[in-house]
Amino acid sequence: MRKVAVIGIGMTKFGQLWKRDLTSLSVEAGVNAVRDAGIHQKDVEVLYGGTMSGGLFINQEHLGSMLPDYMGFKNIPSVRVEAACASGGLALRQAYIDIASGMHDIAVVGGVEKMTDIGTYSITKALATAADTVNESNFGATFPGLYALMAKLHMHKYKTTEEQLASVAVKNHLNALDNPNAQFHKKISIQDVMDSAKIADPLKLLDASPITDGAAAIVLASEKKAKKLSDTPVWIKGSGHATDTISLHDRDDLLTLSATVSAAKQAYLQARLQPKNIDMAEVHDCFTIAELLAIEDLGFVKKGKSGKFTEEGYTKIGGKIPINPSGGLKAKGHPIGASGVAQAIEAVLQLRGDAGKRSTNSENALTHNVGGSGGTSVVHIFER
Amino acid sequence: MRKVAVIGIGMTKFGQLWKRDLTSLSVEAGVNAVRDAGIHQKDVEVLYGGTMSGGLFINQEHLGSMLPDYMGFKNIPSVRVEAACASGGLALRQAYIDIASGMHDIAVVGGVEKMTDIGTYSITKALATAADTVNESNFGATFPGLYALMAKLHMHKYKTTEEQLASVAVKNHLNALDNPNAQFHKKISIQDVMDSAKIADPLKLLDASPITDGAAAIVLASEKKAKKLSDTPVWIKGSGHATDTISLHDRDDLLTLSATVSAAKQAYLQARLQPKNIDMAEVHDCFTIAELLAIEDLGFVKKGKSGKFTEEGYTKIGGKIPINPSGGLKAKGHPIGASGVAQAIEAVLQLRGDAGKRSTNSENALTHNVGGSGGTSVVHIFER
Repeated sequence: MRKVAVIGIGMTKFGQLWKRDLTSLSVEAGVNAVRDAGIHQKDVEVLYGGTMSGGLFINQEHLGSMLPDYMGFKNIPSVRVEAACASGGLALRQAYIDIASGMHDIAVVGGVEKMTDIGTYSITKALATAADTVNESNFGATFPGLYALMAKLHMHKYKTTEEQLASVAVKNHLNALDNPNAQFHKKISIQDVMDSAKIADPLKLLDASPITDGAAAIVLASEKKAKKLSDTPVWIKGSGHATDTISLHDRDDLLTLSATVSAAKQAYLQARLQPKNIDMAEVHDCFTIAELLAIEDLGFVKKGKSGKFTEEGYTKIGGKIPINPSGGLKAKGHPIGASGVAQAIEAVLQLRGDAGKRSTNSENALTHNVGGSGGTSVVHIFER
Repeated sequence: MRKVAVIGIGMTKFGQLWKRDLTSLSVEAGVNAVRDAGIHQKDVEVLYGGTMSGGLFINQEHLGSMLPDYMGFKNIPSVRVEAACASGGLALRQAYIDIASGMHDIAVVGGVEKMTDIGTYSITKALATAADTVNESNFGATFPGLYALMAKLHMHKYKTTEEQLASVAVKNHLNALDNPNAQFHKKISIQDVMDSAKIADPLKLLDASPITDGAAAIVLASEKKAKKLSDTPVWIKGSGHATDTISLHDRDDLLTLSATVSAAKQAYLQARLQPKNIDMAEVHDCFTIAELLAIEDLGFVKKGKSGKFTEEGYTKIGGKIPINPSGGLKAKGHPIGASGVAQAIEAVLQLRGDAGKRSTNSENALTHNVGGSGGTSVVHIFER
């Protein structure tokens, strides 16, 4: 397999973008990524796109044909992949495999979701299709509810507190203040989280990532092309992907996302790195409890210790291992299909030294993108 | 890139399978393919699945996690791709790239759709999301209508007759008589087609493929594994994939599917074959006009000559180039995501010499899978 680098990045502002449609968001992110790479449209050989549900959110499937068409490509191969909230991370991985295989030399990887057009009830219904419809959603389980079960058990088993959960949200909102593309630029306190409306005990509104529109895109290139085209290539050193039971109740252990453990193992092995060697990570914090589970399953902290670890500041910028310097899904926003690609963009900005005030001075970075309640996990390790 | 072979095949009966759900169909096809390959579940390293719209047909996304879970896999990487009606062909191609890259050695590729649970109106609405929702479907265009436009123009420009269109359906129904998995086992005449209800002038009910439930799966292996595990490997000699405008009205030429021309060119080049060297083909005959356009765009007959060519029997089994010996989408059935994989199964059966009465005595075979009205096209060439 050939070496692969990221040579361009582009994204839209994340937020409730009422005036924008999925196509215009995708075009903006794609054009910015191609421009950032210093290449031309004709240099792009293949497209990979991650989106969760064009069918349910905007009544449009076949985006693999529609988006290159609207972007002015002619006859380019274009692949849409879907893995619920891990669609973007999976698109990145499939493009990585494509370039590594020798099939193509330059790929654009995009992630996008336009969620806000259909109203909250329909959005919640659409998101619930990432869980087991027959055995979970049809019985009333929503994603806040599923993650609340994990949070409750973590609190029961490891004495994790609601304040420790809240400290994830507080940190990520603080980080997002310095990210111009983030949905929220609002500093919050532990008390703000504790006082926010309870949505599924023990999770409150400010424990949850928001509903977001947005798109993100990156340009991947083979080693030869990357060295020719870029002064600041960021290399993909490891890629891992695994699945787990789609239903929470089928897991051996509710508090271990075995898909994350497995995907991380693959990525660490390929990169020849261990958790202790990782300088920073963007992890899948769709709920505050998800970030706590992630940093445990990725090996940054022992199982059960993540609440205290976070509360004591070890995951802040400047801490032992900065987690979600971008603001994470929690504060940067979570346009489902785009989130995994946006994580890669943050890794690239950090490794290029272009992260401004939220810089973590990192030599490498890990990204971690989860689908559903852990049914899919995709992990990548980047190095400059 | 490494050589890749098909070493196992499995499919369900195609039809309106009221008692079955998507999961049980997928499991049946997958288990049959793994058994046919003579391997065990633990030998399978990665799954690729094509399905058009779990969201709209069965209210379930994230099938990349759900299906391996229900099949008893643990932590296996599993990728769902979507390209409307070309989802199955695209899943095959992405798995091919994966094995060719060296990432994995053995993959199961599946295609599935469970269409009949939601009623005809909702099915038509779901299928319409493969066209441009804003600029085609919202103005009332359905797929019969879009293909009818192409048929009308072909008739006008090349004097193609309704009887010539009908001859595609008659041939494919005849072929399906010998395919035990086909949805229809019913011989029809030109007059039957002409007398059937008009659905979009000039297309009649018997010019159209049916609504179908079903699943198909194949096992791919790297050269080393294939030679070790199989006495009858069927090699993938060429793979091509391209897109076109999603909307019909944006095409330079309504009667050329440029995605097919481009995908075929890639596959022919890689296989070092020309159209005249191809022994048989399974092409995307969602409507009779689609088969005529396909055999022109694939280079088997000059543009405009396909109607006469078909009417005169050149595409029958035993003819110059047998087209759709399986019965095609028209008579075998068209469970959207499964169709591209089922085409590969027919190629394998034919090349192994296991096609029974519908044998074409072929040394190679081409498969051609289209998404929407031509927005995506995927072409593969197989050789024994």
